[in-house]
Amino acid sequence: MIATKGYAAQTKDSGLAPWNFDRREVGPHDVQFDITYCGVCHSDLHQINGEWGGEIFPMVPGHEIVGRVVAVGSEVTRFKVGDLAGTGCMVDSCRNCESCQKGLEQYCLNGNTLTYNSLEQDHKTPTYGGYSNTIVVNEDFVLHISEKLDLAATAPLLCAGITTYSPLRHWKVGKGHKLAVLGLGGLGHMGIKFGVAFGAEVTVLSTSPKKEEDARKLGAHNFIVTSDPAQLKSAMGYFDFILDTVSAEHDYNQYLALLKTDGVHICVGAPPTPSALTAFSLIPGRKSIAGSNIGGIAETQEMLDFCAENNIVSDIELIDIKDIHPAYERMLKGDVRYRFVIDMATLK
Amino acid sequence: MIATKGYAAQTKDSGLAPWNFDRREVGPHDVQFDITYCGVCHSDLHQINGEWGGEIFPMVPGHEIVGRVVAVGSEVTRFKVGDLAGTGCMVDSCRNCESCQKGLEQYCLNGNTLTYNSLEQDHKTPTYGGYSNTIVVNEDFVLHISEKLDLAATAPLLCAGITTYSPLRHWKVGKGHKLAVLGLGGLGHMGIKFGVAFGAEVTVLSTSPKKEEDARKLGAHNFIVTSDPAQLKSAMGYFDFILDTVSAEHDYNQYLALLKTDGVHICVGAPPTPSALTAFSLIPGRKSIAGSNIGGIAETQEMLDFCAENNIVSDIELIDIKDIHPAYERMLKGDVRYRFVIDMATLK
Repeated sequence: MIATKGYAAQTKDSGLAPWNFDRREVGPHDVQFDITYCGVCHSDLHQINGEWGGEIFPMVPGHEIVGRVVAVGSEVTRFKVGDLAGTGCMVDSCRNCESCQKGLEQYCLNGNTLTYNSLEQDHKTPTYGGYSNTIVVNEDFVLHISEKLDLAATAPLLCAGITTYSPLRHWKVGKGHKLAVLGLGGLGHMGIKFGVAFGAEVTVLSTSPKKEEDARKLGAHNFIVTSDPAQLKSAMGYFDFILDTVSAEHDYNQYLALLKTDGVHICVGAPPTPSALTAFSLIPGRKSIAGSNIGGIAETQEMLDFCAENNIVSDIELIDIKDIHPAYERMLKGDVRYRFVIDMATLK
Repeated sequence: MIATKGYAAQTKDSGLAPWNFDRREVGPHDVQFDITYCGVCHSDLHQINGEWGGEIFPMVPGHEIVGRVVAVGSEVTRFKVGDLAGTGCMVDSCRNCESCQKGLEQYCLNGNTLTYNSLEQDHKTPTYGGYSNTIVVNEDFVLHISEKLDLAATAPLLCAGITTYSPLRHWKVGKGHKLAVLGLGGLGHMGIKFGVAFGAEVTVLSTSPKKEEDARKLGAHNFIVTSDPAQLKSAMGYFDFILDTVSAEHDYNQYLALLKTDGVHICVGAPPTPSALTAFSLIPGRKSIAGSNIGGIAETQEMLDFCAENNIVSDIELIDIKDIHPAYERMLKGDVRYRFVIDMATLK
């Protein structure tokens, strides 16, 4: 076994603290890489706090993981020692179901294996995430990372990046489209970057007028303060797509009114409680409200390659792992531009 | 002016009673046809009861109208005296907006003119519907009706037919798809017929086990009683599409769970009150919930031609206009197989 250092939550009320654990030996199809950086996702906090139910403790969070390969299994062909490597939200899936066969491992019908707080495909071995110094992953779930990009700022692409890239590609958002990005946080700021890169006219919808300057710096063409009824009214029927990154409660009907005929409201943020929806928001313009979850492995690689070609990374604040709790507190207040990334050298 | 006999509601509490009124003279682009049959739509009752707000009284309901042309304007080229003709939910639209230019007059951005309880494009002349002996409509909103089909049973195609045909075509439902039709009423029974005609495997979802025999007679391949948790559970992740014809309150999340990855739940029924929707019903399978409203004029003609070729009509009960109130009462109880149609000869 491989002795590993990490930060773990021991129970749902414990918060995170240093924890030593073992990772499996490098199997024939495995890649081991030492973790250089790991992004901090909102879902890390939800899960260590036990907010989603069914949590597995001890829990080592983290699913925006980049580093350098230190060992490869005998059958591994796609990686060699010294390569940059990354892993996102998944480390395995059934590989046989209709979704997996289509490269949609994120929708695996038999249950994929998430990077942490999940079970391997043996349905008994827990997985531990990227708040740690090294990780062993089947090569099919390891991504190539370009040497061209800032490595720390690349980490959040593995979750925040693919979560926004995938739906914009799936719904073919691009030139001639008017895209609204609802919420300007870790997901929203990537939504702006991809929307602009794909050629759409991008408008940020935010409750906070203070975010306008940042939104425009990130490339947004327009900004609407959603708490101002006049601004909202002026945008009625304006957008082809809304990329909804908000995970606090909000009224879908209010935003559906901003869509054109055949417009699509795409949820990538998931509020904890249901929201009231009336069919009258959908029927008069053949509108849709849809959801999208991260992306498949092939698409994640496509996104990383696209980012390398187009020089797209996340805007980040690098932190010491000892500062993870204050970072969570700031994240809860929306006080981060726009993703915390842990410098894993601080774990030593 | 053209002296016209009809049944009208004089106020929101009055119910319907005979009423004489005038229709405009036949203009150069108008077609006048004497009404032989008019279907009875649930929305007729909502509107005469003033349930949707903004009603215009006196109100002559009816928007599933068929009959025979008795006069045409000097510029009319598409109809001649003696032709069968039909009119559905719309009699005009702005004709200039993005939707109208695409043949989506049902989504006219400047407000289309509905067949009754609406205003002409002059924004002041009220429209009166098909519970009457004759009607004058601009030829662009008059449909050709085949002599091959039972005329009375054709009337409901103008609303119930196009409302279910249009979304199934828009989402390209056909061979290889598993389609659920939620609710077996006026809309649902047409949804079955079209789903089967398009080659889909059709399953009816209904609260009432008594409807199974009828569902199968109408062509459905499967039947699920939605009040039976075991039957619902067995259909989890099974359907590509759900055509939701239910206008009573229901839980969208329960039905979204029955969809496959990328499945679409299409609302054509509109419950009066909002329903709780959680993003967790949409995100894990990239699912959508969408709405659809009748169809454009060109598509309505396409549907009528498809029905003539494939011998598809509505299952109806023909009534005397004097029995409209008991018919409404039965309709409210779901006691109609599957659409009441008024024999307009009984108006004389």
